[in-house]
Amino acid sequence: MEYTNLSKQIEFIKEVDKLKYILRKTKLFNSDRNENDAEHSWHLALMALVLAGHANVEVDLLKVIKMLLIHDIVEIDAGDTFIYDNQKSHTNTEEERKAAQRIFGLLPDQQATELIAIWEEFEEQQTDEAKFARAMDRLEPLLQNTSNKGGTWNEFGVNYEKVYTKKQVIQQGSTVIWQYAEQLINESVEKGILTK
Amino acid sequence: MEYTNLSKQIEFIKEVDKLKYILRKTKLFNSDRNENDAEHSWHLALMALVLAGHANVEVDLLKVIKMLLIHDIVEIDAGDTFIYDNQKSHTNTEEERKAAQRIFGLLPDQQATELIAIWEEFEEQQTDEAKFARAMDRLEPLLQNTSNKGGTWNEFGVNYEKVYTKKQVIQQGSTVIWQYAEQLINESVEKGILTK
Repeated sequence: MEYTNLSKQIEFIKEVDKLKYILRKTKLFNSDRNENDAEHSWHLALMALVLAGHANVEVDLLKVIKMLLIHDIVEIDAGDTFIYDNQKSHTNTEEERKAAQRIFGLLPDQQATELIAIWEEFEEQQTDEAKFARAMDRLEPLLQNTSNKGGTWNEFGVNYEKVYTKKQVIQQGSTVIWQYAEQLINESVEKGILTK
Repeated sequence: MEYTNLSKQIEFIKEVDKLKYILRKTKLFNSDRNENDAEHSWHLALMALVLAGHANVEVDLLKVIKMLLIHDIVEIDAGDTFIYDNQKSHTNTEEERKAAQRIFGLLPDQQATELIAIWEEFEEQQTDEAKFARAMDRLEPLLQNTSNKGGTWNEFGVNYEKVYTKKQVIQQGSTVIWQYAEQLINESVEKGILTK
């Protein structure tokens, strides 16, 4: 019984290796090399570990980290959606739901149910943990773009208003981090790497 | 005060981006592309999340995941050491200690102290959490090499005895996972991808 579970878990572990091939639009810090989803997920989990003390309310850090480790796994089937894409909304598309069923479904039933629930909790953005996790997901590309002279903002013609709107949700996870982020956005306009 | 801490934390978050450039000897699953340390750390943290139920004793999963997220950060300064390297022992070299002081030292004092202690706990291999975390670190390349027709074993002439000795420590973290790993090693010999 135990061994049956282990075999299923190993299949899942092999399958998620594919996340290392999913490229994001954003680039590494001071770099023109695209970040992949596995690197991104590692970075966000580590950011949560380091920044958790700034959350608006005390969060269950283990749950936040679980969310961040798995939040992009559905992109193995559904692909990365650029946050400023006007055609396709990122939020929990039918394609992503099917991907979650297939990929987490490789695990033993109870574990599949648990991880799908955590992924859905992240997508639904109702809990403190989901809000803080999303704050991490919005902060990293802001730091990357400011280190890359505007990065994807310039590459894809994204202006101040769009950036401000997308980043403002950081506030729901952490007011302190949002104040820092807001200052970075304003400085980016002053430096001419983000157009108003 | 809060803001001073945040600035230090952001400096650390930027610095550890360099882990994405540190290449390991092992390759991704069914691939000839080297894995980097950030991808590796993500994969191990996720493995721990999925496999924790197989630990010999109940472990503090958050601590295990913290260990795995940060365990290779010292390699930003000290470089990756191949596990079968006869010249240089991996364990907690002076170079790695200095790296830990410099990199974790970017953080506010209390946090730097906490993360250095967790890194040392992993290196010293005395606690249940450190043993289970190491089991993950030894399991991943075994899965990778068996998917890659022997991978680094063939590339660097590593034989059954060396592999068996290095992998046997998995048992200290999980007997069940070790039984699975032992079977994989024996099957690798039968398949001719590991020489006895």
